[in-house]
Amino acid sequence: MEGLMMDYQLTLRHILELAHRLHSRKQIVSRTAQGIERCTYGDLYGRVLRLANVLAELGVQPGDRVATLAFNSYRHLELYFAIPCTGAVLHTLNLRLFPHQLEYIINHAEDKIIFVDAPLIPLLEGFRDKLPSVRGFVIMGDGSDTGALTPSHDYETLMDRAAGDYELPDLDENSAAAMCYTSGTTGDPKGVLYSHRALFLHSMAETMANTIGLSEVDTVLVVVPQFHANAWGLPYACAMVGANQVFPGSFMQPHELAQLIQDEKVTVAAGVPTLWIGLHEHLKHKTYDFSNLRVMISGGSAMPRNLIEAFQKEHGVSVLHAWGMTETTPLGTVSRLKSHMTDWPEASRLDVQAKQGVPVPGIELRIVDAEGDPLPWDGETMGEVQVRGPWVVRQYFKTPVSPQSFTDDGWFRTGDVATVDEEGFMCITDRTKDLIKSGGEWISSVALENAIMAHPEVVECAVIALPHSKWQERPLAIAVLTEDARARGRLTKQQIGDFLEGKVASWWKPDDVVFVDELPKTSVGKFNKLALRERFADYELPTA
Amino acid sequence: MEGLMMDYQLTLRHILELAHRLHSRKQIVSRTAQGIERCTYGDLYGRVLRLANVLAELGVQPGDRVATLAFNSYRHLELYFAIPCTGAVLHTLNLRLFPHQLEYIINHAEDKIIFVDAPLIPLLEGFRDKLPSVRGFVIMGDGSDTGALTPSHDYETLMDRAAGDYELPDLDENSAAAMCYTSGTTGDPKGVLYSHRALFLHSMAETMANTIGLSEVDTVLVVVPQFHANAWGLPYACAMVGANQVFPGSFMQPHELAQLIQDEKVTVAAGVPTLWIGLHEHLKHKTYDFSNLRVMISGGSAMPRNLIEAFQKEHGVSVLHAWGMTETTPLGTVSRLKSHMTDWPEASRLDVQAKQGVPVPGIELRIVDAEGDPLPWDGETMGEVQVRGPWVVRQYFKTPVSPQSFTDDGWFRTGDVATVDEEGFMCITDRTKDLIKSGGEWISSVALENAIMAHPEVVECAVIALPHSKWQERPLAIAVLTEDARARGRLTKQQIGDFLEGKVASWWKPDDVVFVDELPKTSVGKFNKLALRERFADYELPTA
Repeated sequence: MEGLMMDYQLTLRHILELAHRLHSRKQIVSRTAQGIERCTYGDLYGRVLRLANVLAELGVQPGDRVATLAFNSYRHLELYFAIPCTGAVLHTLNLRLFPHQLEYIINHAEDKIIFVDAPLIPLLEGFRDKLPSVRGFVIMGDGSDTGALTPSHDYETLMDRAAGDYELPDLDENSAAAMCYTSGTTGDPKGVLYSHRALFLHSMAETMANTIGLSEVDTVLVVVPQFHANAWGLPYACAMVGANQVFPGSFMQPHELAQLIQDEKVTVAAGVPTLWIGLHEHLKHKTYDFSNLRVMISGGSAMPRNLIEAFQKEHGVSVLHAWGMTETTPLGTVSRLKSHMTDWPEASRLDVQAKQGVPVPGIELRIVDAEGDPLPWDGETMGEVQVRGPWVVRQYFKTPVSPQSFTDDGWFRTGDVATVDEEGFMCITDRTKDLIKSGGEWISSVALENAIMAHPEVVECAVIALPHSKWQERPLAIAVLTEDARARGRLTKQQIGDFLEGKVASWWKPDDVVFVDELPKTSVGKFNKLALRERFADYELPTA
Repeated sequence: MEGLMMDYQLTLRHILELAHRLHSRKQIVSRTAQGIERCTYGDLYGRVLRLANVLAELGVQPGDRVATLAFNSYRHLELYFAIPCTGAVLHTLNLRLFPHQLEYIINHAEDKIIFVDAPLIPLLEGFRDKLPSVRGFVIMGDGSDTGALTPSHDYETLMDRAAGDYELPDLDENSAAAMCYTSGTTGDPKGVLYSHRALFLHSMAETMANTIGLSEVDTVLVVVPQFHANAWGLPYACAMVGANQVFPGSFMQPHELAQLIQDEKVTVAAGVPTLWIGLHEHLKHKTYDFSNLRVMISGGSAMPRNLIEAFQKEHGVSVLHAWGMTETTPLGTVSRLKSHMTDWPEASRLDVQAKQGVPVPGIELRIVDAEGDPLPWDGETMGEVQVRGPWVVRQYFKTPVSPQSFTDDGWFRTGDVATVDEEGFMCITDRTKDLIKSGGEWISSVALENAIMAHPEVVECAVIALPHSKWQERPLAIAVLTEDARARGRLTKQQIGDFLEGKVASWWKPDDVVFVDELPKTSVGKFNKLALRERFADYELPTA
């Protein structure tokens, strides 16, 4: 028997209208070349309707993919709403990709129009003539020199000309709203197509008191790029509850972020650990008023335990560890202490916070062995993480459903390897492809990296597998030292090994440690292990 | 174009499994005739599976309505999950209804099985032979004397016999999960059929930091009956986030509730204002430790401003005013101060808290005039409240869609009259049928009641319209005084009038005030104005 509730569609239009109706004076703050620019949700609503008319004038039809290549800003936020709310699909392009990747992605998505921040025009110029689906470009900011990007339009000129009224359509909640390609280090990027329903439910999930608890009292610094998994859904979640949003634009240096946090009285800042590592280093040399900052959300890769500890102890900023993927919209888990843990000793609490956390309501999670059989939640058994839920991908765009990505019983295979403890806290130990298979046993490269990064003189460390005649594979650590440590002369492999004593199994200790000035990063700020593997392909491990 | 997210159904099974997997040791506390009984979400899960087998044994099929006539308790919670999760429909019967109403409702719903708390057996005995659809009764508690209720079974005996394994089915999220009849004071009761989707989304909404913000740290005293609009959805919302739940059973006296709040370290208590009025009176004579109680949720009818003030000032308990209806699952609005209001003067903050609040995300709200045209949000213009959203009724069970309840453009007509201010805060002024039409102008009976109840010697006050030769209708106030005031001798109409001076328009002042020892209440604890109108039908207002 069917229930008799309204057939009410969960679409982004409702979030936009809600922000306008209930929170019209709350702020959207953008750091741009012009300094700080401010507008409100009331302004946003008006400009989104105007932008809807612009899209219509550009010939955008329902279902068309409309791309953005832009930094975080209020204009990008306008596109976040106007494109999906008119029935088209917002396709956020990653500005850190190589030209051949961008070209592939734009063509695979068959983007019709690309909205580009003026400083990013050069990223597209080299292959304009290889983009047959693209009918035109809209330049945001000073676009007097649009180079090869033709035909092109100026964003604000189009906005000025557009009418201010627009009747946003009633859309099906399952229709596509946005699209993002995974930045896979192997193989072609794959497109994830988010529905209105997924983004709406995901927004609700991020505002639950048990998860991130975003609310009207918050001012959220969206450091995570808007081209990265819907900026973790924060722009939509903030609008749903009327939180202020702060966009740093291209001003992502530690001192610039610290200044924004202080000046805008930011309460929540969200970004990847490498950013927080940089910020932590900077805070050693300069002090800011972070008294409003209630939580720093870290995701994208594991946040080292000692960094969590440092922010909490030295700066009084609570760190909330989260995990997700492009394929999961992205929020999958958050590591919020349960009530009975709050009076645990600090070290035990940090152990929990260093895990990626429990699934948020809506997400189901399991770990499985190589045969796909579920494994126990004992905090020790490692298995592949699989998830399902209303904001998890079921198929990649224009790609057949493959058993590498999806199980027969409908779970998404994340490719992450983790343990889950009795309380439901997941701890990612590795990517399936990054595990080091040593003598039939697994060594988690991530766990080893974190153990090494806990050394006070190590800033960053990546561990890769090198082939080994006897053990099949053995770990090589590649580390970056603090400036002080570098100035004093380098640490030795022996010292690292001594430091690891008692912290990891002795057979986990790396066979060698190489010190470098910098680690290569992927477009989303993770260690680029593919590049490291290539660079160290011929490296010879010492024969113990 | 369709999004490519999983077609994941939002059903109550996921909430049950989530509570089991992540919060298996959190508590469900019930006050019963045996004293305090405790179980956990882990126990709940096991017993729900067992109960699912019991339902199968009783021949319950998907879509069958299975009724409960019970106080708040862990067994009622088991039924809250087992019935919907097996595909049947949980029909909660209001134990405060008259026998002829219960008979009508059971027959209209065509209930197959009725689960009855043993002390409530007499409520059904008189008309057992007039319930053709009912195949049997299951008695909870000491049911050795089941009287006319045949055939009957004992709950725990069935549970003991049942197997512990049950494969809960995959259900469509739009399928019916629960059912509740409105306690209309006129006409036949009407059935509202909740879907799994509605209950799931409603649970998410109640756990948002911007609304009630229920989370794992909470212990929730569910005073609102489980037969009243899903106990405001709290049992499901608590399970979703792992909050402890405390059920008072039939022990609803102020001292019993106060004791529970203290002993169980309750953080959130939810009930109707009349309960809080009683509790407030009791607290004048006895003190308790309410230090854990962070918020008292009041809904069902307007919470008087002075009572909100009293709880906050005298007991340090924040009051959260909420509004909803059986038809809205029920949460529609909550009156949480916006961030810019927190440094307002206390009086202004109380003014906001005394309103019913802003729509929760997911609910759209408008006020309209007699022609159905939307009215401005200016805090002054009164209009009929209409809502829509994914947890709002679209049709009553086995009842044609009528224009009295639904608009042509798909909104539900609540029958409430309210203003909405610029910030989106709704303030209910009346029921459309309770407005007093005096000389072509409207007097809000509720606003007048609240103004009179602000008098320190008035405990409760109801205002009704009496016919008037000149003005068409004029207000009569019927008031209950405090014990002290009664002992000292009564207040006069003149003193009430003086008290109202400057607080309401002078032509709003009641033409007369009658003092009574008690006001009649409806089955859900509201003033029974129908009974008052009958009782005072021949009352003659003084001719000024």
